[in-house]
Amino acid sequence: MRRINFFLTLFLLPLTALAAEVKSPNGNIVLTFNVDEGVPTYSMTYKGKEVIRPSRLGLELAKDKHASKGMSETDLMDHFVIKEENTTSFDETWQPVWGETRDIRNHYQEYAVTLEQRLDIPHYPKEAETKGMWVEPQTREMIIRFRVYDDGIGFRYEFPQQKELNYFLIKEEHSEFAMAGDHMAWWLPGDYDTQEQMTQQTRLSEIRGRMKKAVNWGNSSVAVFSPTGVQTSLQMKSDDGLYINIHEAACLDYATMHLELVDAETKALTTQLGGGSNAYTPNPKPSSYQLPKPFTFVSHLTPDATGLKGCMQTPCNTPWRTVMVSDDARDMLSSNLILNLNEPCKIEDTSWIHPTKYCGVWWEMIVGKSSWHYTNDFPSIHLDQIDWQRVKPNGRHAANNEKVKRYIDFAAKNGLDQVLVEGWNVGWEDWANMWKRDVFDFVTPYPDFDIKMLNEYAHSKGVKILMHHETSSSTQNYERHIKEAYALMNKYGYDAVKTGYVGDIIPRGDHHYSQSMNNHYLYVIKEAAKHHIMVNSHEATRPTGLCRTYPNLVGGESARGTEYEAFGGNNPDHTCILPFTRLQGGPMDYTPGIFETKLSTWSDNTSWARITIAGSLALYLTMYSPLQMAADLPEHYEKYDDAFQFIRDVACDWDDSRYLEAEPGDYITVARKAKGTDNWFIGGKCDENGHQSTIKLDFLDKGKKYNCTIYADAKDAHYEKNPKAYVITKKVVKASDTLRLTEAPGGGFAISLITQ
Amino acid sequence: MRRINFFLTLFLLPLTALAAEVKSPNGNIVLTFNVDEGVPTYSMTYKGKEVIRPSRLGLELAKDKHASKGMSETDLMDHFVIKEENTTSFDETWQPVWGETRDIRNHYQEYAVTLEQRLDIPHYPKEAETKGMWVEPQTREMIIRFRVYDDGIGFRYEFPQQKELNYFLIKEEHSEFAMAGDHMAWWLPGDYDTQEQMTQQTRLSEIRGRMKKAVNWGNSSVAVFSPTGVQTSLQMKSDDGLYINIHEAACLDYATMHLELVDAETKALTTQLGGGSNAYTPNPKPSSYQLPKPFTFVSHLTPDATGLKGCMQTPCNTPWRTVMVSDDARDMLSSNLILNLNEPCKIEDTSWIHPTKYCGVWWEMIVGKSSWHYTNDFPSIHLDQIDWQRVKPNGRHAANNEKVKRYIDFAAKNGLDQVLVEGWNVGWEDWANMWKRDVFDFVTPYPDFDIKMLNEYAHSKGVKILMHHETSSSTQNYERHIKEAYALMNKYGYDAVKTGYVGDIIPRGDHHYSQSMNNHYLYVIKEAAKHHIMVNSHEATRPTGLCRTYPNLVGGESARGTEYEAFGGNNPDHTCILPFTRLQGGPMDYTPGIFETKLSTWSDNTSWARITIAGSLALYLTMYSPLQMAADLPEHYEKYDDAFQFIRDVACDWDDSRYLEAEPGDYITVARKAKGTDNWFIGGKCDENGHQSTIKLDFLDKGKKYNCTIYADAKDAHYEKNPKAYVITKKVVKASDTLRLTEAPGGGFAISLITQ
Repeated sequence: MRRINFFLTLFLLPLTALAAEVKSPNGNIVLTFNVDEGVPTYSMTYKGKEVIRPSRLGLELAKDKHASKGMSETDLMDHFVIKEENTTSFDETWQPVWGETRDIRNHYQEYAVTLEQRLDIPHYPKEAETKGMWVEPQTREMIIRFRVYDDGIGFRYEFPQQKELNYFLIKEEHSEFAMAGDHMAWWLPGDYDTQEQMTQQTRLSEIRGRMKKAVNWGNSSVAVFSPTGVQTSLQMKSDDGLYINIHEAACLDYATMHLELVDAETKALTTQLGGGSNAYTPNPKPSSYQLPKPFTFVSHLTPDATGLKGCMQTPCNTPWRTVMVSDDARDMLSSNLILNLNEPCKIEDTSWIHPTKYCGVWWEMIVGKSSWHYTNDFPSIHLDQIDWQRVKPNGRHAANNEKVKRYIDFAAKNGLDQVLVEGWNVGWEDWANMWKRDVFDFVTPYPDFDIKMLNEYAHSKGVKILMHHETSSSTQNYERHIKEAYALMNKYGYDAVKTGYVGDIIPRGDHHYSQSMNNHYLYVIKEAAKHHIMVNSHEATRPTGLCRTYPNLVGGESARGTEYEAFGGNNPDHTCILPFTRLQGGPMDYTPGIFETKLSTWSDNTSWARITIAGSLALYLTMYSPLQMAADLPEHYEKYDDAFQFIRDVACDWDDSRYLEAEPGDYITVARKAKGTDNWFIGGKCDENGHQSTIKLDFLDKGKKYNCTIYADAKDAHYEKNPKAYVITKKVVKASDTLRLTEAPGGGFAISLITQ
Repeated sequence: MRRINFFLTLFLLPLTALAAEVKSPNGNIVLTFNVDEGVPTYSMTYKGKEVIRPSRLGLELAKDKHASKGMSETDLMDHFVIKEENTTSFDETWQPVWGETRDIRNHYQEYAVTLEQRLDIPHYPKEAETKGMWVEPQTREMIIRFRVYDDGIGFRYEFPQQKELNYFLIKEEHSEFAMAGDHMAWWLPGDYDTQEQMTQQTRLSEIRGRMKKAVNWGNSSVAVFSPTGVQTSLQMKSDDGLYINIHEAACLDYATMHLELVDAETKALTTQLGGGSNAYTPNPKPSSYQLPKPFTFVSHLTPDATGLKGCMQTPCNTPWRTVMVSDDARDMLSSNLILNLNEPCKIEDTSWIHPTKYCGVWWEMIVGKSSWHYTNDFPSIHLDQIDWQRVKPNGRHAANNEKVKRYIDFAAKNGLDQVLVEGWNVGWEDWANMWKRDVFDFVTPYPDFDIKMLNEYAHSKGVKILMHHETSSSTQNYERHIKEAYALMNKYGYDAVKTGYVGDIIPRGDHHYSQSMNNHYLYVIKEAAKHHIMVNSHEATRPTGLCRTYPNLVGGESARGTEYEAFGGNNPDHTCILPFTRLQGGPMDYTPGIFETKLSTWSDNTSWARITIAGSLALYLTMYSPLQMAADLPEHYEKYDDAFQFIRDVACDWDDSRYLEAEPGDYITVARKAKGTDNWFIGGKCDENGHQSTIKLDFLDKGKKYNCTIYADAKDAHYEKNPKAYVITKKVVKASDTLRLTEAPGGGFAISLITQ
């Protein structure tokens, strides 16, 4: 099959720039859009300060053997003129199914510019090919839509259905974000498969030097792509006090975006764009593409097994690319920009979706004291060849009837809604890292897990069991079994599933954050919704606010969670960074609540959690999630039952939230009003340096008195030396009062305020 | 993660060869097995003539990042000694659910040799890595199992479950087939995605020179991998009159095998093995691997998207590699070696599986007179965004109520069991070549196809509609919809589906013949069986006898079918080759029966079928299949109703079959006894040179007389100049009679023999 070459000719393009300027509702943010010698660019200021310097926008398309059949190959990079501009205002308040506040205001100024790309394209396809005929110039249209909020902007590319653009393959998206200086950044290595790394805090200029050290190469799947590649959401702070955050919203059936930094050492486009021998070659010439200035981030999408970034069919659009900005760090945390850029809820009846507090048969396996698997008798497992009733148990299997009942009793007694049970289903003997496709069937329990009895027992006590589906990243296998698996859940009364994607993706060559995997995660969410099942997805792609559209996506992992406290430990400031980064896209199932922080006191594990007990309680506020785990063992909570009272009491759905203090990596203090009540809860969490907190209670109802219980670090508390030293104080307070609290190194506090 | 190097040391290996010799039941075939300086080799003779010269056996394993966790990396190529040998006899007769004969004899001599590979392997994994410890030599076992039949051999590799071999990735299988001379061969280009090419007839030494010309590069997916790569089943003929055929049996969850020829121009292993920079590097040294002699075929498996050939978990085995041989070409056609090497039927209740004669709304679309798609209104289709009731029909949609009823009437009148209807379901507007994942939903009919009414109408006349599921090779999409699609079939009473895999595989990078795709086809067959659905799979991998184990796999394409008569034409000898090659693995849905061979007489298509009407009738015998189509339009059959009588009469399931004459590419004559009757049908088909056939009827029941109807080419018949000239003769015959028939160029004959 011969390929048709699409020739571009420059004609009628005005060399002077056209500029549009759009202001946010309060005027603080100003967005400027230009078409500069045919190239779309934008820039952005906040209160007159540069946030994004002029930055290029565009997409590079792949060549494909099906070009002659209508697959477009011509890049969407240049030869554009403005055809139409539309500026509109939008102001609406909506109510999430669950969330940090009852109402969310979606208030923006929108600028949608229709760009016309002028090309000479031969007629499709036969005449031109055989007769060398050329026709009149043809055009293609692309819309870039900007939404300008008071706390940031979002923009996306839209591709209307049109004769000259029906299908295309994305080689790379080249959206630039040119920073105005060498900002401080809290970043993770850009990686196609994992973000379970410790956050690095460096200047932009120091990213390249830090990269190697920043990667935990022992992780189950590491696919770092560049010495200056970082993931989003990327939190930065400029020397003149601006907090800037780059992320994306509504990533649906599109590859997850990373950012690749152009720095002083970036030598050539080839190391920067497209990568390796597939680097961007301007088409045809002269190149209108020039190497961006240092401190410019360029988008880098996650590839499929063949190295391409996306298969597109018009009409379609990219996710929103977002830049949040403020001179107050608290605005980074209270912003709803990502949620607002997602589509409204698509699930009609949401009555079955509910916030959930849970415990689980989990931590003792993470720590290594018991096992997910049932037997040690086989070097490997073929699911269809084993009679599980006859195999010899290893005596360490955690998900057994007795233990699960113990957890159900504990949950019932303490008002926890559900009990997660991992390792209930056959296949754990050789589940990971062996490229094994048929690893689980998701319906067959181990012999010591009586699924019917346990669910009936749980329900009789008002508790549900939380389902666990580890896929081992064998996604084809999960999709083959998903309908039976969810039917089983419906049969036994499960209404939530924790999914897992440990290890490399099967089919081989695919990545956790590719277009196809993002489509898979969405497929799972939609199938679950059909069965009235809530989803908590671990090791999946980082979230981009899809929980607005599909609120049965109640949680996720996609970052280094509490489990790493058993794998060597998280830095004390870790949870003071996550709300600025990972949590921008949606809640995290961080699984807080470790009271026995020194694991060696009850296991062979020498790791320890870098947090005080009071700090652990704070996480139920500072790490917002409608799904909150009490992750430690029942016996550990029973030892510190007075502190556990806070976990019993704390809500996990809210009418209001007030971020009182915040600084990335240092401290976060937030007050939240429990859904449908006048009760408030306050949490404060700090890094290894400790923190002094002064809290004005002026958000309380003026006419009311509150029974206040304060769970604070004791004076000598310390995340390493004295983590279990806490003081519980009770008093009565009112709106005019002020509380002064001292957070220990790696500590924090938690406060409940119950109306009298 | 660090990788452990597995070091091999040579010790205790006897340098002299050990030899085992195994004879077939009648002694004609002698297999010899050796371990030569640690390398397993085999050879084979037929009546004392060399068939396979000493040829190496072994597999090369891939390096993997999970090696330290138990993924084996050490090649299974050398350092072997014989540990155990078992020789056994087997003789059994079994009855297929459908087939060419009522009884099939499975009679072989088996030789299973357990090979021990002696290695130094560090203990798993931590101590050795950290302390540099080395342990005593460890061993691995591999079994090579040979079955020696009177008409050929099969061998396979078996990998028992064992401590040092639990999981491995196959980089390449290096099974050699050293030919004894520069044989004549009937071959197709080795290709990962298609075998819809014209067969080439050349000497082995001429393959390289012919390759470029042999490939139809315009095919929808071409992935040729080598200038000397050919596919199996490969039919050859030696200068001393031996017919030799290489193929495989029972390819289950393993990549389809091709053959790569080492010829005089093969310069180095790098072009031969593994390909490119991933070529086989002996581990560690010295290499025991040497370039085979010219005229040696080496196995070449189909890769996955990352270039690897297989993910294996012990216990497991490869498919059987087969070499059939005889000095009588007819034995190539009557052999049951491939079926015998497959597992017995795994479907307990087979009562719902039945031979089927069908017509269909198909040929007029293939020819281009009408369309699969319903509308021309959209540049592309998003299935969830179109209200099909409101779109404008293009007026050319074939699968409409009126036309389908016409075909149902025709089927009912002529005793055809089913009516295939293609293009009944939404999505055909842009179904191919655009990397479109969500291309069909398999449950939504076009507005002019009333699925309920049409099925009821068909059933009222004793006819079924045959379902069509074109997947467009978007396998993930098909698997997502398969359960609903089959439930719909059950609801409306369909019991057979024609599946299609046109175009490149989605997920991108995979191939039609890879391990994962072979697993997909099997998944479809098993899911269909659960729903009591028969499968006829087009553009799937070439069959390897799986229809014994899963007899609901009633047909397949996997070769150039009748449709190519409308795409430029098949050579007249095409159907005299297919029974020697494609049909070795199972029946083909060749869709014979074109009476109006000049398509321009009723359409704009200038192609024409290179066959006479009498030749077309012969195909119902010579191209054995339990699924036989009458592919032409009803009105064409009505014009030649006296010839069509044979299609009405002919059976498609048999108690006995006798190949009376055969020569690859020249002619085939076969007599078959209809299931459960004493009626016989005879078909003879020849190439462009015509053929004289003398048929002794001594297979008829000696005591009976038969009404004999002969459908023969007229004297001046010719596949191009006079294809519709046929003569129908009726007479009464008995077992002692002899018939003499003249087949015209590109012609043939068909005979029915009905007991009086």
